[in-house]
Amino acid sequence: MMTNPIRLYDLAAKDDGIRFSPNCWRVRLALAHKGLPVETIPWRFTEKEAISFSGQGKVPVIVDAGRCVVDSWDIAEYLEVTYPDRPSLFNGAAGHALTRFVNEWTENALHPAIARLILPEIHAMLHPKDQDYFKTTREAFFGCSLDDLAAGREAHLATLRQALRPLAATLAQQAYISGAAAAYADHVVFGALQWLRVCSPHDVTSDQPALADWFTRMLNAYDGLAGAMPAAA
Amino acid sequence: MMTNPIRLYDLAAKDDGIRFSPNCWRVRLALAHKGLPVETIPWRFTEKEAISFSGQGKVPVIVDAGRCVVDSWDIAEYLEVTYPDRPSLFNGAAGHALTRFVNEWTENALHPAIARLILPEIHAMLHPKDQDYFKTTREAFFGCSLDDLAAGREAHLATLRQALRPLAATLAQQAYISGAAAAYADHVVFGALQWLRVCSPHDVTSDQPALADWFTRMLNAYDGLAGAMPAAA
Repeated sequence: MMTNPIRLYDLAAKDDGIRFSPNCWRVRLALAHKGLPVETIPWRFTEKEAISFSGQGKVPVIVDAGRCVVDSWDIAEYLEVTYPDRPSLFNGAAGHALTRFVNEWTENALHPAIARLILPEIHAMLHPKDQDYFKTTREAFFGCSLDDLAAGREAHLATLRQALRPLAATLAQQAYISGAAAAYADHVVFGALQWLRVCSPHDVTSDQPALADWFTRMLNAYDGLAGAMPAAA
Repeated sequence: MMTNPIRLYDLAAKDDGIRFSPNCWRVRLALAHKGLPVETIPWRFTEKEAISFSGQGKVPVIVDAGRCVVDSWDIAEYLEVTYPDRPSLFNGAAGHALTRFVNEWTENALHPAIARLILPEIHAMLHPKDQDYFKTTREAFFGCSLDDLAAGREAHLATLRQALRPLAATLAQQAYISGAAAAYADHVVFGALQWLRVCSPHDVTSDQPALADWFTRMLNAYDGLAGAMPAAA
């Protein structure tokens, strides 16, 4: 059965084709995992009116046959419930609960560590109309200037390498975070490292072969969906 | 069917009755979860000969009808495979894989943050014959003296509160890390916070009601097994 594509509002850089949001990448992989066709719409931080129909101002936003869902976790749950006969994102109740922890670890530990490292690079690649908004909101959130963040790069890189230890140790023992095959926990963590890959040349996996191998497998998964996005120069 | 108790070599303080090892607490709760009777044997760091039969020098060590198993993760897997008809520790393959991540997060992020805070208190509560060994090995591992660690207490407490964020965020949304009921992921994380509770008066849950509620439920679980161990004064 053919399905009309799901629309995904997807954060874009100055270049329409550069998509870098970690939370949008989770959704891209979750849609691919479910085998659902998608039409992505490039969206910028300041285009609040374009998604005002969603009742809020952030992406990812999906529209599936007229139904609008926001927030990456809620989108994953929506897809799991709405398309139960397609490959599972959670693999049951225990998987669902424990994937929530992986999701919260990614948002509360991994994302801040990556953000401190790459916010200056992100600012430089944004559409000019987004740059002031981005600089103001991020400097307020982190309590320091983008220039301060750039000056602390070596320390932020060390902090990020340390934050990745639980992930590297897990992947030294099993192929995927979710077990023998990828599922939503892998999509969530991959989204964070894809964000790093697309926005910044920093390498954090070369000294962690199991982590590097997993990342390569995720880039190649789903017909190379994520690997087709160019890495930062 | 009555089962002969499983023997568990369990790290003890100067006082035989004070058991504080996070990795031993995991095993205590896993055994209780499986409904398996246990006989614990107080053990000190320097009593290497007492467990030399295990081929290594650390606890937890269990002996089940003559079979010796070491390492908390391997013990959990052994119990799950050996007692499959009793309540599950992992709830299936996805639960097993994702619990591994929780285990690695606990060991690589949570344990070091707690250790920096409480190593000086642990040193003070140890049997005198263990104190030199403990001081020497821990100072080498952390690259600073116990006195330095004690002097940095406020910073270590702030780091620990930050490390707990993924846990607090998860428990704000579901009753247990493993979902609707506790399982091994909860035992592992609880073991870390029980270690903190038994060794040190620092409170890190009072400003996180969902985390505090979960911790209380875990103290009361299995007929109050963990709650019966006195907290540090």
